[in-house]
Amino acid sequence: MMPKLRLLTPGPTMVPDDVLREMSRPIEHHRTPEYHSLLEEVTAGLGYVFQTRATCLTYTSSGTGAMEGAIVACCPPGSKALVARNGKFTERWAQVCATFGIEHTVYDIEWGHGAKADRIAALLDEDPKINTVVIAHSETSTTAVSEVERIAAITRARDVLLVVDGITAVGAIESRMDDWGVDVTVTGSQKALMLPPGLGFAAISDRAWTRIESWKPPLLYTAPLPYKKSLATFDAPYTPAVPQVRGLKAALQCIRDEGIENIWKRSSTLARMTRAAAEPLKMRVYATDTVDSVTGLVVPDRIDEPTLRKRLKAEFGVQLAGGQGDLKGKIVRVSHMGYVDALDTIGAIAALEQVLTSMGHPIELGAAVTAAQHCLAESA
Amino acid sequence: MMPKLRLLTPGPTMVPDDVLREMSRPIEHHRTPEYHSLLEEVTAGLGYVFQTRATCLTYTSSGTGAMEGAIVACCPPGSKALVARNGKFTERWAQVCATFGIEHTVYDIEWGHGAKADRIAALLDEDPKINTVVIAHSETSTTAVSEVERIAAITRARDVLLVVDGITAVGAIESRMDDWGVDVTVTGSQKALMLPPGLGFAAISDRAWTRIESWKPPLLYTAPLPYKKSLATFDAPYTPAVPQVRGLKAALQCIRDEGIENIWKRSSTLARMTRAAAEPLKMRVYATDTVDSVTGLVVPDRIDEPTLRKRLKAEFGVQLAGGQGDLKGKIVRVSHMGYVDALDTIGAIAALEQVLTSMGHPIELGAAVTAAQHCLAESA
Repeated sequence: MMPKLRLLTPGPTMVPDDVLREMSRPIEHHRTPEYHSLLEEVTAGLGYVFQTRATCLTYTSSGTGAMEGAIVACCPPGSKALVARNGKFTERWAQVCATFGIEHTVYDIEWGHGAKADRIAALLDEDPKINTVVIAHSETSTTAVSEVERIAAITRARDVLLVVDGITAVGAIESRMDDWGVDVTVTGSQKALMLPPGLGFAAISDRAWTRIESWKPPLLYTAPLPYKKSLATFDAPYTPAVPQVRGLKAALQCIRDEGIENIWKRSSTLARMTRAAAEPLKMRVYATDTVDSVTGLVVPDRIDEPTLRKRLKAEFGVQLAGGQGDLKGKIVRVSHMGYVDALDTIGAIAALEQVLTSMGHPIELGAAVTAAQHCLAESA
Repeated sequence: MMPKLRLLTPGPTMVPDDVLREMSRPIEHHRTPEYHSLLEEVTAGLGYVFQTRATCLTYTSSGTGAMEGAIVACCPPGSKALVARNGKFTERWAQVCATFGIEHTVYDIEWGHGAKADRIAALLDEDPKINTVVIAHSETSTTAVSEVERIAAITRARDVLLVVDGITAVGAIESRMDDWGVDVTVTGSQKALMLPPGLGFAAISDRAWTRIESWKPPLLYTAPLPYKKSLATFDAPYTPAVPQVRGLKAALQCIRDEGIENIWKRSSTLARMTRAAAEPLKMRVYATDTVDSVTGLVVPDRIDEPTLRKRLKAEFGVQLAGGQGDLKGKIVRVSHMGYVDALDTIGAIAALEQVLTSMGHPIELGAAVTAAQHCLAESA
């Protein structure tokens, strides 16, 4: 028998059968009352996941498209952006600024660390021209979490917009857009929302809309305003990826049924189980500011990382992600987002024990799983 | 029993069960050898559909995203575009030029007519600054066809790039990108490719790449070059809509099995059947330059168009599209693209006869179906 696939990469994540079934129904047209009421329903459900009453836009794009639209539209001429760069994705947001000629300064952060509120306050004090701050809540590439709540407290007290890449945060870790005062939060379908890739989402506050509607950004496909205007009649400006929107309805129902705070608690438990397994696995947890949606584990010195991941998949169906950029070959990443539970996580840890032992890594078989079990029992 | 849905709108179109089944398989990661070989296979298949050896890019976007990328990247500073505007979609391509500050002139064409080679030659003679021509092969909104082959003969003889919106043309009507010398052709997934919406495609010739690679366009998400670079290893620059790419493989197999020229012939037959039905239906064919992928029929004077379409769907499951822009309420549009056959078309005509008769339109029941049957028999 082929090993059953256990997709534990930090996007795409596993998709529940109910969602796949919903997606495989015969296609219907999107300029219909049926689609409008579908979009109305999922838009309300997105508000619950984002914890916001802000307008939630659904893009037919990856998260990158939605982030591009948000960053550019929030930065009219005369603006200056501050981009907190602590990994590959935040590097991309700086690249968006460069591409669209947005004046910006980069706050470089050691990889494995998140953006810090104190440092952002100091940078805003130093340069009053900065009117937009771009951060990743969870830097997927370096598995680090930023101080979003504290940073939002700083930006909302000033005329500064906070644009948050919540791609591996929203629906996985505590994220309260309205309570915290975040202006824009973006996510993608293939993470905590348990869908295949194909959709990007942007929740945009009234404060951000005031800025966005004050000018005409040099964007068409990713410009947020046409999506907002169409949403007034629960329509889309360009043809939407209907199957994913259908699947979204089913996925949002799962999220409501479980309860968003219970989901945050589940991710947190799975992350703590994985971190507890690190010591007996003799693998270091990579990040200092560890995020609960994905854990990076440093591959031991004498272990070949591509071989490790290949064997995990071939022998146990466990698919982990490797590192990106400078971390390529150095870490493996285990996701705790979406349709994943304690037994999936224990399975991944067991597979790591099996393959690492067989590769000659001197660990005690069963110790990592036991550590995770204890952690799970204490979380109940 | 609910009437069986017969989706005869010019996008989305019906999706074969095999394609839906392929799309509903559990999701897998896209940074894997499996996805790379999938992308390699579909990229080759796209070349067959586009009839080209040019690079075929797969965007996670609607066709609009791919068109935006193509138009903007083909127009570096100093360029001037000529946009042939004969409907709602070509109007959008002029809007792309305006949004991105591309100097352009609009060649306005009476709705229902296509872009003409002679007029384009004259406009190019008048203004030697024009170095890019943007046309729609099939203007979906006005059901009109343009003289692509003849226009390409003009542009390829000059240093002028021809960018073709082939969204309701590629895979439906004769379109020979390389033989004709078209520089860029764009399409979307939810038309002749028989997929749900979610993907856009751009086939880009070497001549166009020379221009595109000569500068850095003000685009990130829709910029073509990163897609080309990633395609060198059959990868995607941003997370792709994996289910649709999987479905694409199945759909391309159907296209190869039938043969592209047989498909062109099928669309043409269905279009002729529908046009033959117009007279007995006492409905005028809207377009002068009729395209074979979609037919627009003018709704008779005393018939309320929304009621007509609502009853067609409620009583017979036949879903047609209405008009767009100035044509709203004035025409209905019947698609001949993708997974649609003669019996679907006869069914739609029969449903039109039934509902129009019941609404008091003085036609002879069965005459339109009979006219379509004769047309079908003659095409065999």
